[in-house]
Amino acid sequence: MSLVDALIGCAGAANVLTGADAQPYLTDWRRHATGRALAVVRPRDAAQAAQIVRLCAQARAPIVPQGGNTGQVAGATPDGTGLAVVINMQRLNRIRGIDTQNDTITVEAGCVLEAVQQAAMQAGRLFPLSLGAQGSCFIGGNLATNAGGTQVLRYGNARELTLGLEVVTPQGEIWHGLRGLRKDNTGYDLRDLYIGSEGTLGLITAATLKLFPLPRARRTALLALAGLDAATALLNRARGGFGAALTGFEVMSADCLDLVTGVFPEQRLPFGPMHPRPAWYALLELSDSESEAHAQDRFESVLAPALEASEALDVAVASSEAQSAAFWHLRETITLALAAAGPCIKHDISLPVSQLADFVHETDAILRQSYPGLRLMVFGHLGDGNLHYNMLGPGGAGKEQFAAMESAIQALVHDRVHASGGSISAEQGIGQRRVDDLRRYKSPLELELMGRIKQALDPLGIMNPGKVLA
Amino acid sequence: MSLVDALIGCAGAANVLTGADAQPYLTDWRRHATGRALAVVRPRDAAQAAQIVRLCAQARAPIVPQGGNTGQVAGATPDGTGLAVVINMQRLNRIRGIDTQNDTITVEAGCVLEAVQQAAMQAGRLFPLSLGAQGSCFIGGNLATNAGGTQVLRYGNARELTLGLEVVTPQGEIWHGLRGLRKDNTGYDLRDLYIGSEGTLGLITAATLKLFPLPRARRTALLALAGLDAATALLNRARGGFGAALTGFEVMSADCLDLVTGVFPEQRLPFGPMHPRPAWYALLELSDSESEAHAQDRFESVLAPALEASEALDVAVASSEAQSAAFWHLRETITLALAAAGPCIKHDISLPVSQLADFVHETDAILRQSYPGLRLMVFGHLGDGNLHYNMLGPGGAGKEQFAAMESAIQALVHDRVHASGGSISAEQGIGQRRVDDLRRYKSPLELELMGRIKQALDPLGIMNPGKVLA
Repeated sequence: MSLVDALIGCAGAANVLTGADAQPYLTDWRRHATGRALAVVRPRDAAQAAQIVRLCAQARAPIVPQGGNTGQVAGATPDGTGLAVVINMQRLNRIRGIDTQNDTITVEAGCVLEAVQQAAMQAGRLFPLSLGAQGSCFIGGNLATNAGGTQVLRYGNARELTLGLEVVTPQGEIWHGLRGLRKDNTGYDLRDLYIGSEGTLGLITAATLKLFPLPRARRTALLALAGLDAATALLNRARGGFGAALTGFEVMSADCLDLVTGVFPEQRLPFGPMHPRPAWYALLELSDSESEAHAQDRFESVLAPALEASEALDVAVASSEAQSAAFWHLRETITLALAAAGPCIKHDISLPVSQLADFVHETDAILRQSYPGLRLMVFGHLGDGNLHYNMLGPGGAGKEQFAAMESAIQALVHDRVHASGGSISAEQGIGQRRVDDLRRYKSPLELELMGRIKQALDPLGIMNPGKVLA
Repeated sequence: MSLVDALIGCAGAANVLTGADAQPYLTDWRRHATGRALAVVRPRDAAQAAQIVRLCAQARAPIVPQGGNTGQVAGATPDGTGLAVVINMQRLNRIRGIDTQNDTITVEAGCVLEAVQQAAMQAGRLFPLSLGAQGSCFIGGNLATNAGGTQVLRYGNARELTLGLEVVTPQGEIWHGLRGLRKDNTGYDLRDLYIGSEGTLGLITAATLKLFPLPRARRTALLALAGLDAATALLNRARGGFGAALTGFEVMSADCLDLVTGVFPEQRLPFGPMHPRPAWYALLELSDSESEAHAQDRFESVLAPALEASEALDVAVASSEAQSAAFWHLRETITLALAAAGPCIKHDISLPVSQLADFVHETDAILRQSYPGLRLMVFGHLGDGNLHYNMLGPGGAGKEQFAAMESAIQALVHDRVHASGGSISAEQGIGQRRVDDLRRYKSPLELELMGRIKQALDPLGIMNPGKVLA
């Protein structure tokens, strides 16, 4: 019996897609990679997923786990050989349980992130993982890539939000690790090894996640800043003054917001003309566990001195939920505005917060000198030391010219990040897109340790081959 | 050249202890295990530690990493063969650097935990890991065992407090993973694999740790409670009302505190006689990022309704730092009082918080019925679902009788914990003392995965053999 027939026997013909039916699953979100697959299979539950993995293992067929397909690095896209079986997790989308006394929720990997947030909210709790793609990304993909987003500052990334996992091993066994425990020191940390391994060590089918109390009040402010140094000073002031109530601290260059308001004229900055023109903006969010009045007082106690100290040129405090959403919308549409503006060179970097401002000043200067016409479009999560250090290419460059420039610029930026002890992939992972970068910047010892773990857990090398490790 | 001579050549004779000089390093803190060693070596720095590991690897000599030797499970004590080399980390005790803008501190493994706390404090920051042994345990041991303690509720365990590690591999190479990054998704999570692996995968020589703002005010209260259900209700009220300002929530049975005040008559409870007599006490700590006045208001806003709802029978709010320290001292001396009271049967268990009260009620009842005269002495970190479910044996039992009873009781308790999805070692690890338990309760698949990782990273099996894995 062929593998496809065996898969149909297992999951049913309706859930084994081939030919044109499979096509929508074979291109990554950024449309940089299109692969081919023997089939796209949609298991119903963990047991069926395990059976599918066993069939693939018997046939030595490569497996590509796939969630909502919103990744930036083509980690869920098969290669061009047509030998791979894509396991799409969309049918494993049950909320298995919520325990409000234990503050945990257990969900299947195919749940859309927003559905997890909503289920928590309905139980009077917060699930804080929050990112642009939340309406379509799956929690399983968030875990496979250790997703970050805008609330990491306070709540940590996907890894820190996870207590337990259920994983299908490359041998098709199920590891029942769905523990709802805050403390468990019984052996090696398999959980955190699977999280962030991008489907190369196993297939995550479910997770038990931490919940938090819902804040009683939120405050959002947009601040106009003279420069990134001022943003760092403001961050330190806000960390000291708000403590754990500081749940968001995003920065955006003025060029980013000019682009947004240019591409989407219905969006507007809440400021009049300023001299000097601000070079950066910060978006600051406070989540208060007491009351609206307390949130207001507290917000003012930090923002007023920041204005007096000239850390901020101007401050706009959102006066309603709608205005707060509008401020966040400015931040969240930068990516769309960039997509509309032409070919974009992207970096997802992190550095110690203490080094970030200098890094940006110096790297900006080098790039502007070497590549006239380049338009820097930098934004990101300053509180986590994580910037999307992006730029629009100079107009008029042909496709090949642009590709050559892109690769030279990425090497320049990543070399500088590496020299400063930073990361060349802060939150997006490696996938297939950054495999060469990983080989370039990781120490041979760390690559060897990773390779030995891969070999130990997936000796046939069938789990998402070509991703993360070469 | 013999291995001892080679070690002397590397570290100097003064730092290679044998015979009587080695003796103090060969018995564990609880005096349950005494081993023998070829030598105890004290490297000066990571490079020398790596050289020592290489020498041991060449000679196929087992290596036992050792910190402050305060563990509960004899994880840093060699076996009886006399073949092992103990690597004691006391000379690697430098604070390598503090970065207040990045909120990180980099320390060597042999730093005493309290020294790390103090270095952070001097820089105006909090390093929150806090536990009874903090005056003598080493941060390297805290990381090797993923230590918990009293602040996990708010700040997480040792794993969640760590950003980067420096590790000597069993081959004697140094992994330079001292990253001060909040986000870094470049490959497998080696950091969290080493943390909690109890020296069986490598030797941690340094770490970069997270720092936090110092709270502006603290409030501590001791609450008398009718039962453990009331404690759970109070915990939920405090989590909702305090949010991230809730930094401690400990519970102690009345029997525990009676024992403390009996053994240490200078210690006293801050309550008059009560009817009914309280069965439990809770110790609650609020860390406020605003002001003394705000801390006071906030504390009252949660405690007053708790009294009205009869969740608490009485409340004593510490009126000074000294009184707050006295309340914590009651909690912290339980272990000493138990040690003074005779042979003790200990369990370090965790369960989902939602199941804890029922577990204790039912297990208490079974034990009291089966073992008349047993005195239950239960206390722990309710906010983490972690209890030290301990008991004093009935008086008069001979040594052999007691040992038989201890092992039957531990099996009974651990079987029940396991059946409820709990952990048989919440924060103390496995060491050599719980190796059999681990084999009994971990699934064969999880043991196999752990074994494969061990084999991949330490193929000679020289790192802390006999610990964690059999």
